[in-house]
Amino acid sequence: MTIITLTTDFGLSDPFVGTMKGVILGINRYVHLVDLTHEIAPHDILEGALALEAAVPFFPPGSVHLAVVDPGVGSRRRAVALAAQGQLFVGPDNGLFTFLLGAPGVSAVALENPAYALPRISQTFHGRDRFAPAAAHLSRGAPLPDLGPPVTDLVQLAWPGARLEAGSLVGEVIHVDRFGNLVTSVRAEEVEALGPPDAVTVAVAGRMIRGVSRSYADRPAGEPGAIVGSSQRLEVFVREANARTALGVERGAPVRLWKGTRL
Amino acid sequence: MTIITLTTDFGLSDPFVGTMKGVILGINRYVHLVDLTHEIAPHDILEGALALEAAVPFFPPGSVHLAVVDPGVGSRRRAVALAAQGQLFVGPDNGLFTFLLGAPGVSAVALENPAYALPRISQTFHGRDRFAPAAAHLSRGAPLPDLGPPVTDLVQLAWPGARLEAGSLVGEVIHVDRFGNLVTSVRAEEVEALGPPDAVTVAVAGRMIRGVSRSYADRPAGEPGAIVGSSQRLEVFVREANARTALGVERGAPVRLWKGTRL
Amino acid sequence: MTIITLTTDFGLSDPFVGTMKGVILGINRYVHLVDLTHEIAPHDILEGALALEAAVPFFPPGSVHLAVVDPGVGSRRRAVALAAQGQLFVGPDNGLFTFLLGAPGVSAVALENPAYALPRISQTFHGRDRFAPAAAHLSRGAPLPDLGPPVTDLVQLAWPGARLEAGSLVGEVIHVDRFGNLVTSVRAEEVEALGPPDAVTVAVAGRMIRGVSRSYADRPAGEPGAIVGSSQRLEVFVREANARTALGVERGAPVRLWKGTRL
Repeated sequence: MTIITLTTDFGLSDPFVGTMKGVILGINRYVHLVDLTHEIAPHDILEGALALEAAVPFFPPGSVHLAVVDPGVGSRRRAVALAAQGQLFVGPDNGLFTFLLGAPGVSAVALENPAYALPRISQTFHGRDRFAPAAAHLSRGAPLPDLGPPVTDLVQLAWPGARLEAGSLVGEVIHVDRFGNLVTSVRAEEVEALGPPDAVTVAVAGRMIRGVSRSYADRPAGEPGAIVGSSQRLEVFVREANARTALGVERGAPVRLWKGTRL
Repeated sequence: MTIITLTTDFGLSDPFVGTMKGVILGINRYVHLVDLTHEIAPHDILEGALALEAAVPFFPPGSVHLAVVDPGVGSRRRAVALAAQGQLFVGPDNGLFTFLLGAPGVSAVALENPAYALPRISQTFHGRDRFAPAAAHLSRGAPLPDLGPPVTDLVQLAWPGARLEAGSLVGEVIHVDRFGNLVTSVRAEEVEALGPPDAVTVAVAGRMIRGVSRSYADRPAGEPGAIVGSSQRLEVFVREANARTALGVERGAPVRLWKGTRL
Repeated sequence: MTIITLTTDFGLSDPFVGTMKGVILGINRYVHLVDLTHEIAPHDILEGALALEAAVPFFPPGSVHLAVVDPGVGSRRRAVALAAQGQLFVGPDNGLFTFLLGAPGVSAVALENPAYALPRISQTFHGRDRFAPAAAHLSRGAPLPDLGPPVTDLVQLAWPGARLEAGSLVGEVIHVDRFGNLVTSVRAEEVEALGPPDAVTVAVAGRMIRGVSRSYADRPAGEPGAIVGSSQRLEVFVREANARTALGVERGAPVRLWKGTRL
């Protein structure tokens, strides 16, 4: 059995996701269907892309990732499928797959072959009518080039990173997770390049955090800390509490790191 | 592998849905379990029926649809199974399956054969004790008549539709989706019967919308529009916004359409 | 196909649960993955344990239950796997499995064999790096003793029960379900031991309820009632309403029962 993951901004109150699964199973019954998340904020392409970036490396080769955050449904935006990192991806061409495009070995096609879509395509639900069938056919082994003509100019989002500024590394909060932890745009290797973890200072929301912890338990309860989290990004946490509410920080807030413990 | 879908008002915080799946898999391990939605408002039978109506046509023949919105659990309301439209349905006899009953070829039975239920039936959770086992046995090929005696007088809900009133077609908002789109009781064919899409006016919440759009992108951002949505019903949207909050409209609000662009 | 259930406090907004499933399917493709709930309140070990206790008896023998409510991740708390009641359990050793420990025939090991974990273990996401691989290997038939050395001193939570006090049975509300029903710590057999259901009085939040009902329908709409619920515990409900809001009761509120109808 192959695997198809689903990532959308559809929520779970409407039967949209279940309907896509019905379409997939009508084409390929021998698949595992795995929900990554359907709680992406409506139309928030970057949030969808970050969720995919975090989860995809933990899936076996040959998995198909169906992603639908699609504010442009019914407009002229292209529908695409990609092969990258030994896996397959299907969704709108609006930047959702930006995180795949820096590395070599990506190939992409526009979903134009009507044999890989439902016979009748609505103007408002391409997840069901166009993307789900394409993912199902790919999971059955349909060759990528059969789905449509090659595409080489995929849409790319401005991707949040970190920049050097007067000796500091400046990034931003890109996600707040269920526990209130603040995931930042600063990557593990950038933190490591600053020097020994104990000798780094992290500033966020007017608070100074001395040292990057090795575990949550390194910090006293109620105290903010910084740690390299499970997606290899710097995270700010408050032990046994919610950092978002404790620090009053939302997505987009700046984070600054520097070598040394001077303030 | 056959397919069993699940639609309930149980939510996802309690382990109710997972428990039903445990019961099913104890009876038939060779099934796909697909959640349609578990976020039906508690006891809202009509909302459950509308979710099923939208999703069911996209499932392959022979799928089993298990639906539990069951305010009458433990009372004398019947438990039933139906065959209709080439698919099977299991749930309480309270109107959940009204949308199936207009067409010919429906057969139904009352779930009275104890061999297709758990040995011990609680008074509060027939989803687990009665409906899940019946769906599992049907998915294994148990013949419908084996489950119990025939039923011909299934409960039916008053079904929201549209009526002609002084030259206008009058319907109502029957659902607000995740994006704030207002799904109405007016069907695609009723809209088409009014004339060319450009020459129809839609009135809702004191706003007039000229023309039925072919895609969301036909309207300027922030402007309300009307479109035939993915479930073949007229929907009111506000491009790149939430129509519910932008227009201040909830379920039950009247919608009026007429031919022509006069106000 | 074997079954792995998943119970966590991860919520469904982040791709944490989907990522664990990717890890599992990379190790064993021939499993059913069943979500019990991911809406356990963050770090609420008792709530997780109660959810497991209610659902586990309805799963077939040999099922693997993966549970991650893990405030101590990254600290010295042990990671464990257990065999009990003909089923298998994987998670942190923090009391999540207390409900299994009263009966004989439980065996447990500490997850110390690195062959049954991901090669690289983060400090913040053992669900993905340690527990999911262990569950997947167990579902493939790995013998429990291969995962690590035996453990006999598993952490146990104080478990909510009921006590006799001046002729009354005193328990507490341990869970409020989706419908607002108040699940209590008083077990069915304790209720039965008090005498005939009609001759029992239940007191909660200053309200007296005479008799334990056989079904919700026994009570008039809007009236509070008591019933033995689907997990064999006494529950307080308000027919066709939400008992939590109607009675102003939250988890932890005391419940008192006595034989007789005197107040």
